[in-house]
Amino acid sequence: MPEERVPIITLTTDFGTRDSYVGAVKGVIIAINPHAKIVDITHEIPRGDLLEAAFTLQTSFETFPPRTIHLVVVDPGVGTSRRGILVSTDNYYFIAPDNGVLSFIYEREFVNRVMSLEADHYWRLPVSPTFHGRDIFAPTAAWMTKGVDPGNVGPEITDFKRIEVPKPKLVGDKQVEGLVLHVDRFGNLISNIHEQHLEPIFEKLGAEATYNVQVGDTTVKAVQKTYEGGAEGPIALIGSSGYVEVAIPKQDAEKTLGAKRGAPLSVQF
Amino acid sequence: MPEERVPIITLTTDFGTRDSYVGAVKGVIIAINPHAKIVDITHEIPRGDLLEAAFTLQTSFETFPPRTIHLVVVDPGVGTSRRGILVSTDNYYFIAPDNGVLSFIYEREFVNRVMSLEADHYWRLPVSPTFHGRDIFAPTAAWMTKGVDPGNVGPEITDFKRIEVPKPKLVGDKQVEGLVLHVDRFGNLISNIHEQHLEPIFEKLGAEATYNVQVGDTTVKAVQKTYEGGAEGPIALIGSSGYVEVAIPKQDAEKTLGAKRGAPLSVQF
Amino acid sequence: MPEERVPIITLTTDFGTRDSYVGAVKGVIIAINPHAKIVDITHEIPRGDLLEAAFTLQTSFETFPPRTIHLVVVDPGVGTSRRGILVSTDNYYFIAPDNGVLSFIYEREFVNRVMSLEADHYWRLPVSPTFHGRDIFAPTAAWMTKGVDPGNVGPEITDFKRIEVPKPKLVGDKQVEGLVLHVDRFGNLISNIHEQHLEPIFEKLGAEATYNVQVGDTTVKAVQKTYEGGAEGPIALIGSSGYVEVAIPKQDAEKTLGAKRGAPLSVQF
Repeated sequence: MPEERVPIITLTTDFGTRDSYVGAVKGVIIAINPHAKIVDITHEIPRGDLLEAAFTLQTSFETFPPRTIHLVVVDPGVGTSRRGILVSTDNYYFIAPDNGVLSFIYEREFVNRVMSLEADHYWRLPVSPTFHGRDIFAPTAAWMTKGVDPGNVGPEITDFKRIEVPKPKLVGDKQVEGLVLHVDRFGNLISNIHEQHLEPIFEKLGAEATYNVQVGDTTVKAVQKTYEGGAEGPIALIGSSGYVEVAIPKQDAEKTLGAKRGAPLSVQF
Repeated sequence: MPEERVPIITLTTDFGTRDSYVGAVKGVIIAINPHAKIVDITHEIPRGDLLEAAFTLQTSFETFPPRTIHLVVVDPGVGTSRRGILVSTDNYYFIAPDNGVLSFIYEREFVNRVMSLEADHYWRLPVSPTFHGRDIFAPTAAWMTKGVDPGNVGPEITDFKRIEVPKPKLVGDKQVEGLVLHVDRFGNLISNIHEQHLEPIFEKLGAEATYNVQVGDTTVKAVQKTYEGGAEGPIALIGSSGYVEVAIPKQDAEKTLGAKRGAPLSVQF
Repeated sequence: MPEERVPIITLTTDFGTRDSYVGAVKGVIIAINPHAKIVDITHEIPRGDLLEAAFTLQTSFETFPPRTIHLVVVDPGVGTSRRGILVSTDNYYFIAPDNGVLSFIYEREFVNRVMSLEADHYWRLPVSPTFHGRDIFAPTAAWMTKGVDPGNVGPEITDFKRIEVPKPKLVGDKQVEGLVLHVDRFGNLISNIHEQHLEPIFEKLGAEATYNVQVGDTTVKAVQKTYEGGAEGPIALIGSSGYVEVAIPKQDAEKTLGAKRGAPLSVQF
């Protein structure tokens, strides 16, 4: 007898945790399916910051089991004509406003189909024009955990929105130019340069090739595997999601180096 | 065969999330009933702020399924002679100190009975005089999810405490005067004027009647349905809990307008 | 028929809640055992602060039911040669880096055995050198909830690390000298002097003996049972975990008294 499936819904929002917004969303889900397991990714996305939400989701969604429903509510255009969407990939479901917040997902997952959320019998009525997270996205997610077919939530669309995701570029043979995409709680500067972007260079120069990292005005020569590797000043390493990052052991690299999110960061062999 | 009921307990506290207080409360609940589903509303109520706790609970409790137990621990008088209470309404249970923090609930729900928490065989003993949340309220809630009858937790009382909830008032035929009751994470100024308070005026003046909103020194003429409606400056709208609110698209209205919680806010037709 | 056991895993980390680190850890656990109940103690331990993590865990772990797995990830040496460990006590399991963060536990619980985490078939591979929380500790905890025997996660060790836990000392017959071990959200100054440390003095002087508390430059004469006991200025009391603490009703004692964590605090009869 197969083990009973536990329905899982993750939440990534900019609601903060001071107000009752997150609680209201969870209440709606649980009222529909009390067996749903709700997991907070974060509620501290800066207000309306699609790129930050996209990055945060992208660095965690794959640890969840197949068929997890990832709910993302960073929704500056709530109540306007922007649609809500359900994205069905080979491994997961994603429910979000159609504002590009899932752009990283479209690159990482094989997208089977995208539906526009229009079937209002799955909604909490009347819908507040300012809180689709509670009234449209959450109940749709909850009904899906009860076995509703993705095809039932609304018509399939193909013109879903993407936002420009900053991509690193290869300059010459030995340099990759990117930028600081995220600064974490510790002040570590995480770039958009993935270790995969360095592979072609390693293939040419050999696995023993070395590089340094330039971020803002700082040249980082200490490339390590871990935060504690010996160097006292700034270090570079491949972080836990595979991106080149700059850190300072026991310090806050953002504050110490004065390099903020968006600052140019490049890898030079 | 009816589906097994999932017992649900929500938490609204001023404990913060830095210390072990919330964890200790959850441990106590789970040790009594590991099947209880615990949902955080918030732990960031300002210290001892009964009105803020009351508002936060009031804007989320109704999304939860019937028979949810809402546990509220904002308890500046912990250990003094103030009682702990269990409030049983037609739809929910509420467990809290008897300090008025449930005052909004008494207005919204039909209260069946209120019990004073005195049956110490449901408590964690010895009770710390400074942490009734952990030692009295949490275990009582957990035992109730195991089927304990509300009548068993202590004697019924009728003199439970209410705090003054600021009420809007109708001034003349065309004006409602209230105040800013809550400022949310985004800096939106949420008043105590509910859309129901405007209905009598709409009935007289017709559904097409228009109004503006005065908050502090600012007159807000742009009354919209959503945050993104065109106007650049301050806007007014009916928020997701039905209250008149003043916001500024992509800005923090509290900071920009200098209007704080408690500031007068009125609606003028 | 015995009730089905609910597997419980608690989390105490310095990850913060802004990034996706906590979400990634939870995803890993749930992917292995979706029935695991995950409870956050806190994620706001100051970066790498072992003593704070130890104190936070120590003031909450005992409220959880037997066989709970307490996962502690405050791990400044991640990726270096420091080991990961599983500590099995009479009542609980603890999984953490072997950096002394469990030092309080070694004093409070009867330790049956300590295993070094080496069985990498329970890990998430490839292991990131900077995120053992996600790749080693979390999956090991999750597999244990599936019935893996502690003896299988790696070899038993006896040289696990302890950190110096600041201990109060008896000075003469009537004085106990300690320090401020933790400042909570409310600014209450919680010391390392437990009520048990005062018992020998009470035994000598009688149960009616009185004392005052000195913290920094302040002498606190009002020793109360609760925060609200009458006095306006600083008060001392036995807090909810049994430690002598100094507070000021409705104020932040840390700010008002200028006494920080680490400040000397003594009890004088």
